[in-house]
Amino acid sequence: MSKPTITTESGRYFLTDRIREEVNFYCTPQSEGVDPPPVQKPAQPGSRIIPLPSRHEWSIKAYDLQTAIADRESHRRFTGDHLSLDELAFLLWSTQGVRAVIHEAAVLRTVPSAGCRHPFETYLGVLKVDGLDPGLYRYLPLDHALVHERDLPNLPAYLTAACRGQAFAGQAAVTFIWTAVMARTEWRYAEASYKVIALDAGHVCQNLYLACEAIGCGTCAIAAYNQGLADELVAVDGYEEFTVYIAPAGKVTRK
Amino acid sequence: MSKPTITTESGRYFLTDRIREEVNFYCTPQSEGVDPPPVQKPAQPGSRIIPLPSRHEWSIKAYDLQTAIADRESHRRFTGDHLSLDELAFLLWSTQGVRAVIHEAAVLRTVPSAGCRHPFETYLGVLKVDGLDPGLYRYLPLDHALVHERDLPNLPAYLTAACRGQAFAGQAAVTFIWTAVMARTEWRYAEASYKVIALDAGHVCQNLYLACEAIGCGTCAIAAYNQGLADELVAVDGYEEFTVYIAPAGKVTRK
Repeated sequence: MSKPTITTESGRYFLTDRIREEVNFYCTPQSEGVDPPPVQKPAQPGSRIIPLPSRHEWSIKAYDLQTAIADRESHRRFTGDHLSLDELAFLLWSTQGVRAVIHEAAVLRTVPSAGCRHPFETYLGVLKVDGLDPGLYRYLPLDHALVHERDLPNLPAYLTAACRGQAFAGQAAVTFIWTAVMARTEWRYAEASYKVIALDAGHVCQNLYLACEAIGCGTCAIAAYNQGLADELVAVDGYEEFTVYIAPAGKVTRK
Repeated sequence: MSKPTITTESGRYFLTDRIREEVNFYCTPQSEGVDPPPVQKPAQPGSRIIPLPSRHEWSIKAYDLQTAIADRESHRRFTGDHLSLDELAFLLWSTQGVRAVIHEAAVLRTVPSAGCRHPFETYLGVLKVDGLDPGLYRYLPLDHALVHERDLPNLPAYLTAACRGQAFAGQAAVTFIWTAVMARTEWRYAEASYKVIALDAGHVCQNLYLACEAIGCGTCAIAAYNQGLADELVAVDGYEEFTVYIAPAGKVTRK
């Protein structure tokens, strides 16, 4: 099997919607009656589950949308202050929160996703969050809870290395690592899945930027990461599920 | 030259960041001292320019970010009411507005973009906006103005056809058609450009979703469009610049 690469021609093609003219949508797993993949990876039996405060419980103050959009900027320096669990819950809800469960293949979230496929899992490199020991966690949107995935003794260094030496990934209060589970989107879109997964990741990350504004935090998305190290960090196989975008977030000093 | 296509393997590869391990960043146009492409396509001489109200002039009320995120949903039915020019200006500013001009290659906007490359042009299929005749317009972010591109007698039908028969594109008050100018991002990232352009388009569209909430509007992004017709509609060459994402927006009835 030859190794794929990207050329100017193939890369530009990828960004068009020409692929839709080629896909036989009568032969997708969905059309063939295959059950949709689960919308959320299960937690390992016996793992620690941390329920998160819900929108009606947390104390996140109202914040003007226009102000958030106007003031949003990239932040790579953090104060070192901790986030509260309320604040982390708000960031997770803003980026992947569930609005409504229609049926097993249609779970509406706070962000749009092509065909309501929502391919992402949200892993968190938690460093400075009140009530959470540092370590690797994952968001469970259906439960609005965290699952503790594992402890990593050198987490700041590991995060920095996975982000190609961008040290702010290890200095954040929490670094979001979004993976995508290919089967979720491929179930419906087959070879027309890949561009829309990237579009969807952009939706998610933009909500993180804006939600950060509302709580005195900042972020700067990282698309330049070490694929192998990032996938190893979150313990995914790198083919059926792999890292697609990263965003370290933390408290910032406002100008 | 063989026609590119997308396979499961090449599509998944595209979503990784493996390409960054292959690109020789010492040989990009930026590294070779090539001037950056203009951040905004010029208006044709003699074309009609419509200045837009700025943030300090428009009458867009404050709106809570959390409410916008909670209530956002896909809207494909519009009331048929017109948008005001203030409202359109607000949507354009939210999606591509300029925050600051640092230098010719660094123009900060209301959305993040990989390497501050901002590859997009925003074309508008204007149907129901106060003060604007229906037709095709383009946003000029540096001027915060519109340029009238051309009149199209059958614009609603053309928009619907370009969106593969999705009629709401022709029933909207305004349909956003984002193209990407390849050279802007390729100047810095070469073959590592394509995934980040799609991520960037997702950032832009998410701000449109949220800004719509603040003004009684709704949208539903369209990734399934007819590439040839969409590019013909906005009169781009389809290779150096082409359509990447579409979003019809209009007034909606709240639940």
